[in-house]
Amino acid sequence: MLIALLPGDGIGPEVVAQARRVLDAVCGDALSYETAAVGGAAYHATGHPLPPETLALAERADAVLFGAVGDPTCDALERALRPEQAILGLRKALGLFANLRPARLFPELADESALRPEIARAIDMVIVRELNGDVYFGEKGMRRTATGRREGYDVMSYDEDQVARIAHVGFRTAMGRDRRLCSVDKANVLETSQLWRDVVIEVSAEYPDVALEHMYVDNAAMQLVRAPGRFDVIVTGNLFGDILSDQASMCAGSIGMLPSASLNESGKGLYEPIHGSAPDIAGQGKANPLATILSAAMMLRHSLGRPDDADRIETAVAKALAGGARSPDLGGAMTTDAMGDAVLAAL
Amino acid sequence: MLIALLPGDGIGPEVVAQARRVLDAVCGDALSYETAAVGGAAYHATGHPLPPETLALAERADAVLFGAVGDPTCDALERALRPEQAILGLRKALGLFANLRPARLFPELADESALRPEIARAIDMVIVRELNGDVYFGEKGMRRTATGRREGYDVMSYDEDQVARIAHVGFRTAMGRDRRLCSVDKANVLETSQLWRDVVIEVSAEYPDVALEHMYVDNAAMQLVRAPGRFDVIVTGNLFGDILSDQASMCAGSIGMLPSASLNESGKGLYEPIHGSAPDIAGQGKANPLATILSAAMMLRHSLGRPDDADRIETAVAKALAGGARSPDLGGAMTTDAMGDAVLAAL
Ligand SMILES: CC(C)[C@H](C(=O)O)[C@@H](O)C(=O)O
Ligand SMILES: CC(C)[C@H](C(=O)O)[C@@H](O)C(=O)O
Repeated sequence: MLIALLPGDGIGPEVVAQARRVLDAVCGDALSYETAAVGGAAYHATGHPLPPETLALAERADAVLFGAVGDPTCDALERALRPEQAILGLRKALGLFANLRPARLFPELADESALRPEIARAIDMVIVRELNGDVYFGEKGMRRTATGRREGYDVMSYDEDQVARIAHVGFRTAMGRDRRLCSVDKANVLETSQLWRDVVIEVSAEYPDVALEHMYVDNAAMQLVRAPGRFDVIVTGNLFGDILSDQASMCAGSIGMLPSASLNESGKGLYEPIHGSAPDIAGQGKANPLATILSAAMMLRHSLGRPDDADRIETAVAKALAGGARSPDLGGAMTTDAMGDAVLAAL
Repeated sequence: MLIALLPGDGIGPEVVAQARRVLDAVCGDALSYETAAVGGAAYHATGHPLPPETLALAERADAVLFGAVGDPTCDALERALRPEQAILGLRKALGLFANLRPARLFPELADESALRPEIARAIDMVIVRELNGDVYFGEKGMRRTATGRREGYDVMSYDEDQVARIAHVGFRTAMGRDRRLCSVDKANVLETSQLWRDVVIEVSAEYPDVALEHMYVDNAAMQLVRAPGRFDVIVTGNLFGDILSDQASMCAGSIGMLPSASLNESGKGLYEPIHGSAPDIAGQGKANPLATILSAAMMLRHSLGRPDDADRIETAVAKALAGGARSPDLGGAMTTDAMGDAVLAAL
């Protein structure tokens, strides 16, 4: 099976290299790899953040392991050439509409969370974020008002098919867990949210065993601080999911720990750590590779049909942490390499 | 000076009554009051959540003290008749474009925050939220896609004048504090945010003493958990402000503690606790009135030119807390009345 490695910018190459070492140790020759440029790195090399060869590789591969994009030297470029367009373009081109972000605290890291340990320890949820619609992909631009003033605009929208397919992912995810689904919207203000809520309720008829609740996004942002342990599965749109999933991950400890999967209808997926390119620490061996290693485990489970290998990696990460492996973001001083070594030793 | 009292739904009447007692004790006959119906209560009485008499009173008054709106029995009504439209309508009709939400932890309540006490204790910020634009007030509705599917849509937009006037409020607020302003947007995805960022940068030329930074909203949601003490003043749009200010308030302790002011260009304001109508505890004497009492203090300071009276009230609240006043949300058992008594006794 072919894995597309897209290391990208900043710390991306460092963390992807460690995930590759772990995959080699676990899967040996069963997987093969091709690497391509993406993000600011690709822009500097080819003039575009998502070159056609990179997209073609991602389409050909059985799964994509992604590092990070984001490069301050590209800030002044027109939007279409900025590094972020690479990840948005991949999500759209591959139809990766379902973003799964598990957030749970490794018990070994209870002291790293900003939340009280007893609150943080209760966190065990999956956020299911829609990734192909919403205000991200609507018509947008700059225009002039009637009085000639500059105005920026972006159209937010969802149609019923988009909502239904992500709702199904949310319900199915809940069926595999504690059977509680919280749908987050802003239906008291937004028509997009009203349709979202209507359709989620329609879909719920097919999942009588799942307890469904609806929550406004402002309240959800509060509950994720106050009582994050109350959530099992959250399903929400692209924009609210962007905000809430980053917030939830921070509640669960270091952002250096959390993986994500972005899936299309046929189960093909792109796997990436939720942290960004962290240009301030790039190239210094300070990055925590565990989120990428855990993303590789998700890839084995969700796209490659190797759940046992996924379990092995996740167990090894827990063991490495229990053995004291700590990068700077976890309050320690271990290098990126040494963190990779610790996981390899624990396998 | 005339105060419009709009108690509204749920616990609104209970908490506004306590604020009124405190205002009477502090200002005596200097203030007069008229009460009007708003929200679900007004809908049930008159068929509209913001009756013309209520709006007229709010316009005539020197300031508005608002309880809360939100009534589950109105959930099935068409949007224009729902309780939330009353507060949105007041904000728009009175031109209340600047929402100020101070978030700081009363030291006495360090144990109530979900955050570790050492992180919570460092919180001392003001969130400045734009309140008259964004996706809240753009064109919105239900339509059919080309293939006949239901689609909900809402247009997000800001023009340069809207951004500039709230940016000025942000910079001026920072000038009166630690002179650090963080502007929150999603400029890597949204054109509305790109204009926001451009205009904030333009306005910053008039405030050379304020250190300005820009942060993406997903990162801001993380930083508000990880290191909320790093913020002095945050300025952001209506939708992001809705989410982040509720999140920040929860980081600072109970939502029952936090006041807000919504101001127009001439300094006229509407003052409300940031908690909602809490229908589940309405009428049981369980509501914490301190957020409303502190909102009344903000009213004295920002709209009525009585900063000394505002200080007196805030000091009395701190004293009451130090003396052990605790409603259920603060881990105690005191009734709404008893909390009011405690503040009166501390005056
Ligand atoms: C880089 C950016 C466009 C992206 C997003 O907003 O989706 C990122 O924040 C994420 O969550 O993957
Ligand atoms: C009630 C609702 C419309 C309102 C808002 O979203 O602005 C509320 O959440 C607030 O923050 O005051």
